[in-house]
Amino acid sequence: MRKVFNFSAGPAMVAEEVLLQAQAEMLDWHGTGMSIMELSHRGAEFKTVVDQAETDLRELMTIPKNYHVLFLAGGASAQFSMVPLNLLAENKKADYIDTGIWSKKAIMEAKRYGNIHVAAQLDEGGGLARIPSQAIWSLRQDAAYVHYTPNETIGGVEFHWLPQTGQVPLVADMSSTILSRPIDVSAYGLIYAGAQKNIGQAGITLVIIRDDLVREFLPGTPILYQYSIQVENASFYNTPPTYSWYIAGLTLAWMKKQGGIRVFAERNQRKAQKLYEAIDNSGGFYVNSVDPECRSRMNIPFNLRTDSLTTLFLDETKKAGLTNLRGHKLVGGVRASIYNSMPEEGVDALVGFMQEFAQRYG
Amino acid sequence: MRKVFNFSAGPAMVAEEVLLQAQAEMLDWHGTGMSIMELSHRGAEFKTVVDQAETDLRELMTIPKNYHVLFLAGGASAQFSMVPLNLLAENKKADYIDTGIWSKKAIMEAKRYGNIHVAAQLDEGGGLARIPSQAIWSLRQDAAYVHYTPNETIGGVEFHWLPQTGQVPLVADMSSTILSRPIDVSAYGLIYAGAQKNIGQAGITLVIIRDDLVREFLPGTPILYQYSIQVENASFYNTPPTYSWYIAGLTLAWMKKQGGIRVFAERNQRKAQKLYEAIDNSGGFYVNSVDPECRSRMNIPFNLRTDSLTTLFLDETKKAGLTNLRGHKLVGGVRASIYNSMPEEGVDALVGFMQEFAQRYG
Repeated sequence: MRKVFNFSAGPAMVAEEVLLQAQAEMLDWHGTGMSIMELSHRGAEFKTVVDQAETDLRELMTIPKNYHVLFLAGGASAQFSMVPLNLLAENKKADYIDTGIWSKKAIMEAKRYGNIHVAAQLDEGGGLARIPSQAIWSLRQDAAYVHYTPNETIGGVEFHWLPQTGQVPLVADMSSTILSRPIDVSAYGLIYAGAQKNIGQAGITLVIIRDDLVREFLPGTPILYQYSIQVENASFYNTPPTYSWYIAGLTLAWMKKQGGIRVFAERNQRKAQKLYEAIDNSGGFYVNSVDPECRSRMNIPFNLRTDSLTTLFLDETKKAGLTNLRGHKLVGGVRASIYNSMPEEGVDALVGFMQEFAQRYG
Repeated sequence: MRKVFNFSAGPAMVAEEVLLQAQAEMLDWHGTGMSIMELSHRGAEFKTVVDQAETDLRELMTIPKNYHVLFLAGGASAQFSMVPLNLLAENKKADYIDTGIWSKKAIMEAKRYGNIHVAAQLDEGGGLARIPSQAIWSLRQDAAYVHYTPNETIGGVEFHWLPQTGQVPLVADMSSTILSRPIDVSAYGLIYAGAQKNIGQAGITLVIIRDDLVREFLPGTPILYQYSIQVENASFYNTPPTYSWYIAGLTLAWMKKQGGIRVFAERNQRKAQKLYEAIDNSGGFYVNSVDPECRSRMNIPFNLRTDSLTTLFLDETKKAGLTNLRGHKLVGGVRASIYNSMPEEGVDALVGFMQEFAQRYG
């Protein structure tokens, strides 16, 4: 049982079972007398790690056969470039939905490569953040793709519905929501996600791409940014981040053992509900400014009345073993990130602390 | 004392002390109650890792103040693109020296971005690989840079002298030679190196760049491939591969404790000499086909007379705990990679085995 519950937005908590296994195997992976980080990426031993990770991911997410699974270096930010560099090769138009800071980063980069139209923006009227309903989106039927961010880690805004884009492929930055709930992969053209939130440690990014989207790329696209090269070489064109891949594999195996995505989805739902209730029932001591219809189940930002109360809250939670609750520097306040690896006990401990703190200072 | 000596070309052996420390700290880094892989890259704790790694590297390599040190994702192959994407922005001409497979990969990628001239090529006349002397290189005085590969891991060819390029910046892929011997950083414009050979584990790449070379980039260069953005953000534009950075830091600290680069250079010199002597004194049982003037101290490829003898050698070494000696698939045969983390005892064990094997089958 861990002494500290870490609410970091990413790199974030890793399941204790995963850390214990990594620790036990550090100097001798499966009787080889070598650490997994010392093994050639092209050897038979590492291949078992790669194959098992893909098998487990495909099973957990029910990924259809016509989708490739890639494990790439560079983080989701690399995908901000890689998506337009590849998907705009034949048709330079794409639509983006802007629901926060991560959407904006993706948009800023995509605009360097094509005709990018922001089809909808977060509505913050009345001080309450709301994802606009699709009825008022201005999608273009001839776009190469529609890009959105199902969960915004900074704003704490999440889609609880699936955009309908007809024949236009839907592309999603799922860094902070992948594996947290069931999703219908077949509804997407491309899904990407940095690993450091729900899949393990930083350094590796998951890409799930429908095979018809692996085509041309814009001239000048660096070789490692070409989906076609990565698919052709099964993510092995060059030496991949093998240890991050291994930790992802352990995390996926742990998820399967825990019962799969439905178990995590229910647990995540409960965890989020407990925290939102603690906020909403605090009589305004804690305030979350997101419309309940689009509150995130992964990242829960909230504010206290004054900066000095916020500072006190952050100091005291840290002393209580509830760490990394400081809000993103762009927005301040408090943020609790509660990905799959955050045990329910961690959320219970935070809720207990919040109630006690509010009683003392409310 | 390790049971297995792993001669992999990379990912390669990591010092036992480093693995033991990583193991001990896996669930609780410095009393935080958290694993280093769970800590936010922007937090105060991880900053101490980053700062110490840079301090140690600067000290080990005596890096002048006018050089930036970057720790980037993507591997050395990302640098094959990143170097021309940045350094060819103002002047599209560059010269490359081709001494083997890694040089060729760098050249192939650079040709997509500018006027690339191969100024010299490995001489393999008479079945002996030789780096051509600079007297016969056809360098262009108006090139933006000269690129070379000081050590070719597949061919086992290494420069034991420093190319003189006058005012033209020298760029080096030092993936398999960095930190193995003293180098004069001030003689270079840019040095890059994947970590998985001499700096720890895969997933992170070191770039040492002189400040006047951090300038413009070609239009369309992905944001993470812009040296200027990476320098401006001290490699933190996006989430970096934090655990690989941590292992690099432990490796650099271990090198300092062992006595620094001169100690490793002497040890590497002895290790290589022992192996080459075992080959050269085998009466032709083992053959290395590189001119002694440019034999690698890091990667020592050799052949046995027949394929069946090679197979037997690889099987028996593996059983004896001397692993990953199979030559690269493009060239076959045997290859012993003996980076900094390969203890001298590992080389002694291999030499002993080679002598005994040659007696049995010679």
